[in-house]
Amino acid sequence: MPGNTFGQLFKISTFGESHGLCVGCVIDGMPPNFCLSESDIQPELDKRRPGQSNLTTARQEKDQVKIISGVFEGKTTGAPILLLIDNEDKRPEDYLNFKDLFRPSHADFTYQAKYGIRDWQGGGRASARETVARVAAGAVAKKFLREKAGCEFLTFVESVGDIKTGLNYQEVKAGDIENSPVRCPDIAASQKMVELIEKIKAEGDSIGGVVFGVIKKMPAGLGEPVFDKLSADLAKAMLSIGAVKGFEYGSGFMASVMKGSQHNDEFYMANGQVRTKTNNSGGIQGGISNGEDIYFRVAFKPTATIAQNQNTVTLDGQAAVIKASGRHDPCVAIRGVAVVEAMAVLVMMDHFLRYKSLCKN
Amino acid sequence: MPGNTFGQLFKISTFGESHGLCVGCVIDGMPPNFCLSESDIQPELDKRRPGQSNLTTARQEKDQVKIISGVFEGKTTGAPILLLIDNEDKRPEDYLNFKDLFRPSHADFTYQAKYGIRDWQGGGRASARETVARVAAGAVAKKFLREKAGCEFLTFVESVGDIKTGLNYQEVKAGDIENSPVRCPDIAASQKMVELIEKIKAEGDSIGGVVFGVIKKMPAGLGEPVFDKLSADLAKAMLSIGAVKGFEYGSGFMASVMKGSQHNDEFYMANGQVRTKTNNSGGIQGGISNGEDIYFRVAFKPTATIAQNQNTVTLDGQAAVIKASGRHDPCVAIRGVAVVEAMAVLVMMDHFLRYKSLCKN
Amino acid sequence: MPGNTFGQLFKISTFGESHGLCVGCVIDGMPPNFCLSESDIQPELDKRRPGQSNLTTARQEKDQVKIISGVFEGKTTGAPILLLIDNEDKRPEDYLNFKDLFRPSHADFTYQAKYGIRDWQGGGRASARETVARVAAGAVAKKFLREKAGCEFLTFVESVGDIKTGLNYQEVKAGDIENSPVRCPDIAASQKMVELIEKIKAEGDSIGGVVFGVIKKMPAGLGEPVFDKLSADLAKAMLSIGAVKGFEYGSGFMASVMKGSQHNDEFYMANGQVRTKTNNSGGIQGGISNGEDIYFRVAFKPTATIAQNQNTVTLDGQAAVIKASGRHDPCVAIRGVAVVEAMAVLVMMDHFLRYKSLCKN
Amino acid sequence: MPGNTFGQLFKISTFGESHGLCVGCVIDGMPPNFCLSESDIQPELDKRRPGQSNLTTARQEKDQVKIISGVFEGKTTGAPILLLIDNEDKRPEDYLNFKDLFRPSHADFTYQAKYGIRDWQGGGRASARETVARVAAGAVAKKFLREKAGCEFLTFVESVGDIKTGLNYQEVKAGDIENSPVRCPDIAASQKMVELIEKIKAEGDSIGGVVFGVIKKMPAGLGEPVFDKLSADLAKAMLSIGAVKGFEYGSGFMASVMKGSQHNDEFYMANGQVRTKTNNSGGIQGGISNGEDIYFRVAFKPTATIAQNQNTVTLDGQAAVIKASGRHDPCVAIRGVAVVEAMAVLVMMDHFLRYKSLCKN
Repeated sequence: MPGNTFGQLFKISTFGESHGLCVGCVIDGMPPNFCLSESDIQPELDKRRPGQSNLTTARQEKDQVKIISGVFEGKTTGAPILLLIDNEDKRPEDYLNFKDLFRPSHADFTYQAKYGIRDWQGGGRASARETVARVAAGAVAKKFLREKAGCEFLTFVESVGDIKTGLNYQEVKAGDIENSPVRCPDIAASQKMVELIEKIKAEGDSIGGVVFGVIKKMPAGLGEPVFDKLSADLAKAMLSIGAVKGFEYGSGFMASVMKGSQHNDEFYMANGQVRTKTNNSGGIQGGISNGEDIYFRVAFKPTATIAQNQNTVTLDGQAAVIKASGRHDPCVAIRGVAVVEAMAVLVMMDHFLRYKSLCKN
Repeated sequence: MPGNTFGQLFKISTFGESHGLCVGCVIDGMPPNFCLSESDIQPELDKRRPGQSNLTTARQEKDQVKIISGVFEGKTTGAPILLLIDNEDKRPEDYLNFKDLFRPSHADFTYQAKYGIRDWQGGGRASARETVARVAAGAVAKKFLREKAGCEFLTFVESVGDIKTGLNYQEVKAGDIENSPVRCPDIAASQKMVELIEKIKAEGDSIGGVVFGVIKKMPAGLGEPVFDKLSADLAKAMLSIGAVKGFEYGSGFMASVMKGSQHNDEFYMANGQVRTKTNNSGGIQGGISNGEDIYFRVAFKPTATIAQNQNTVTLDGQAAVIKASGRHDPCVAIRGVAVVEAMAVLVMMDHFLRYKSLCKN
Repeated sequence: MPGNTFGQLFKISTFGESHGLCVGCVIDGMPPNFCLSESDIQPELDKRRPGQSNLTTARQEKDQVKIISGVFEGKTTGAPILLLIDNEDKRPEDYLNFKDLFRPSHADFTYQAKYGIRDWQGGGRASARETVARVAAGAVAKKFLREKAGCEFLTFVESVGDIKTGLNYQEVKAGDIENSPVRCPDIAASQKMVELIEKIKAEGDSIGGVVFGVIKKMPAGLGEPVFDKLSADLAKAMLSIGAVKGFEYGSGFMASVMKGSQHNDEFYMANGQVRTKTNNSGGIQGGISNGEDIYFRVAFKPTATIAQNQNTVTLDGQAAVIKASGRHDPCVAIRGVAVVEAMAVLVMMDHFLRYKSLCKN
Repeated sequence: MPGNTFGQLFKISTFGESHGLCVGCVIDGMPPNFCLSESDIQPELDKRRPGQSNLTTARQEKDQVKIISGVFEGKTTGAPILLLIDNEDKRPEDYLNFKDLFRPSHADFTYQAKYGIRDWQGGGRASARETVARVAAGAVAKKFLREKAGCEFLTFVESVGDIKTGLNYQEVKAGDIENSPVRCPDIAASQKMVELIEKIKAEGDSIGGVVFGVIKKMPAGLGEPVFDKLSADLAKAMLSIGAVKGFEYGSGFMASVMKGSQHNDEFYMANGQVRTKTNNSGGIQGGISNGEDIYFRVAFKPTATIAQNQNTVTLDGQAAVIKASGRHDPCVAIRGVAVVEAMAVLVMMDHFLRYKSLCKN
């Protein structure tokens, strides 16, 4: 009931605070007898890792993952997998000045209102650092889905502020995403994004962006009807990321200005498979995958932490001015790419196992 | 695990098919000793009811709700509440021709792929008729939240196709929504929407739209951190509605083009309350309510059923042409207003009870 | 969270009060494409049905089940199955005198303490009548397990008061159970039980008993480690029956006086299968089935309703005397046989589906 | 769905293997703003700790608990609490000889059947070492229940083999339990138990026992009707302990030979409270606490590991003989006392929070 667990059959429970000893998660429901080592997980963490360039936070974390349980002689046993990632570059003292202040558009005030207490060191549990654990768990599931279901994931930055790639997702290559410091596969757009972010950063400001996600080669039939639609679970997964303000899949908000005759995806046969000519459905119909690409967009707000003066109030209701001096990402969407992908993976993994439990006659 | 249940502490489980005997739900977790009768529920069902004007489906359903259990001498007892709504105007024969066809952008193919069998009568369980049960359950929770938490809900059509109200939600009055046949409180826009829908309908086509929702006077502190954020649960709730393609709250997708200095909501004190000057956060920070209005947008696609020829395939993989002659809504967003509101209510009710369980010291 | 749902992947939610309109349940998670009709369910309900002999309550209920949803053209579709059973022989007036009294060893006081309100008509939701719904759901699962897993269930009365069958469960035949009015397959013991119950009934009293359950031919590997052990879920299932005071499986309480050298079940091979020579483990080791018979005992207390004067207090705390004149079972264990079997079936069905979801490599 | 989580609102997820790096758990749902330190937990772990006397296993573990997250400046924050306990005295090599054997009445065979792989080092996840985590979590909840609900727990060994205390639980003092090396508060019985266990141990054998548990001063109204009865959840909790074969509460199996007129607990008033004269109900009626003492018995089987020759089979189906030389408890019920108490605490804590969420009007 408390909110730190995600998934039903592939269940992850995260823990740990931004400036505590470590962050991590327990994975319960990992299929047994599957080869798994830390080197399967580390590359995904490295994509999310802070301190990679001047476009992300200056916090230096190796984000080295340790598998503490659930793997025996290189294979999963079906037991819970505990993953730990130490916090190395902690600087709680950076937050001492904000101890009694509510940082605007952070969770300081709401945590105080809810719990009557809060860990003021870097937002504690509300920090984006919590997402390290999600990425680690996602890496485990991603390896499984790739090997057992042949499924592929592609996730990239579509826009930063008003700079947007003109590329269609079908043209995108995974390597081009990795080559871009802003995870945008469109070289020209990527360059402009870099310039924009550098300018924004110099102003002590931050900027929003949109992340685009694609799930390829999922079989038809995944997802549950009514409340646990694939689309509903993807939406929940994405909106559970702190800085995310919107989600759409397939035609998305554009669908609201379309006619049915434009929007409907006609069926045809190809190689004995039922296919759709267009894919406004975004690979999901009635909440269940139809075998086409699943694709979606996720809107990130600008980072709440900015190096400018802002008005706020103190714990005891006094007016105050706050100016962040700490380390932060000028555009959180960039490192958000890894988190969006991890969450998509976790949703698909859970539904893959649910699909397996169906006992279709 | 199967997908027909929503909520944790206020849990609804829906059942029933479009052309079966009835639809309905079981509510488990209703607080005891609360006055409840069918007349508390019926008005909400009447808002969603089909056959009200020529802008909605011609199916005639009274949608009369019956409380079968859980209420004793006019009060809830804490026992599960069974709500039943008969299907009166069933016409399964309308679907006989589509029995072996996959209707484009419906769930026919995906249900077949998932289950190996499907109820072809009006989409069976995938029909929007299932949402009657959600609206009935929502009516119960809405009465409770209004009386016990003083909370109010306002939900309306913001746009149909490219016609959009210019009204700010703060100017919207509940009565104006009810007076509009398209549930749009802006008289001028409403009239244009009516004209557009009539034109679209005459063409045998359908059109999308956007529904705007507002939750007022919720106390600060509702919602869970990390995965069960209020925003995440609202997103899931909305995307669980069949025709919905996107969700955003507060600044939404617009946040992606904004700077932090524009987007952040500064805090100030008013009447001893911590308030924010702006509300780009949409009343939710770190997944938890901050006491400001919670507002969001929900994108509806155009109805998949249209009276035009469309290409498709049959169950056994033959090319075919389909043309609907049945009854359908030219713009499903209109009746979607009641469903969006019900889902928002259900999310808030569940989090209200979770909040009560917190035992803050 | 509220307590009216059982199971994870095969989930039943019951509703309805003793003297309300009906009782029933929603089954969510039934595998699709499986033949199912009311005639598959009715025989199980008939075993539990009241009014069959003078050894059970005089309440006359046909307990005719209706399948309201989830079955299409004779087959399950994967959609929720609503089962309804009308209450026909309601006599709420029998309880008018007890309206403001707490009947001893009933749930009247605790429901009042918990909810601040209670349905005083026959115990409302706390009545054994609620178990009709469990038996109906169990019948559905039992058919599935029999046909798809080859599994068999055998459940009978082992003792009534101090009269006990000397039969080993392996000698018991299903037909002999059905032929006994007290569901005891041992003819001599059965006759003595009948006499005891008639005597007890004449005294206006009631008597306890023990029900013995066997699950045969379940494959090895069902059950989850740690908290969701098969044994733990069976224990919960049985103790969820109102009149049950104890549960043991395999060697049970006798294990507490045994040595390891007596108790351990040695392994050997037979027909390529790993088997155990003895079965003190009761077919479950480490919470997981080992392929041997699963067997257990369930202790029923004497019916709380008796036709003798008893001291109690009123709602407003006054001393009072109560004497039941209503209809009741002198030995609730007899009809409890059907409920115990249904609960065992529900546990096994749920774990069967969980087993299917495992994705063992 | 996987079985490593217990509880709904106070949720614990355990992880770790017997001879892995550590064992531990994540607690999700701990109320915020509550003082908590390692010294609150350690004393409970010390009660369960191995190596305390020659009556328990010779394995030497300090079982030092570390709070890794969820506590800030000495208080809980509402965030998940990670508890870690290192495995120090690991000797996986002790199990090398059993690597390809199925130890009788252990979980070796069933884990292999379920997962197709198993951690053979001391039973891996199926080891009683997993219960360290339960005791640690229980200590946290126990402190909360004591301080916030005034609730007390009393748990002791009632019998070892056929030696049984004649003490009524009401006469038992907590200190007498702690003073007994076998956790039996009856000095004479305790001494006989010690002698019996020493004799059994010398024979290379083991012996069963019964643990008695009492929960005092719980308010009336805890527990959920129907499936989540307090009694049902206690039964599940106890049967989730590996060596437990039976559970009964209140009159338990004795109820099966009693008449209603003997068994019913009459109500009376005392100090404005509704009380019962007798307590055959064991403090629970209709699954809900009535304010009287909750008491129950838990049957432990003899430890499966014995230092005698036993027949078994190998992984590839060959007959074999096994003789344990490792360290084990001759009577697992002794250290089981701490685990039984922890599980009782966890059940009550969860229902305490569920009770708080009820919103009774």
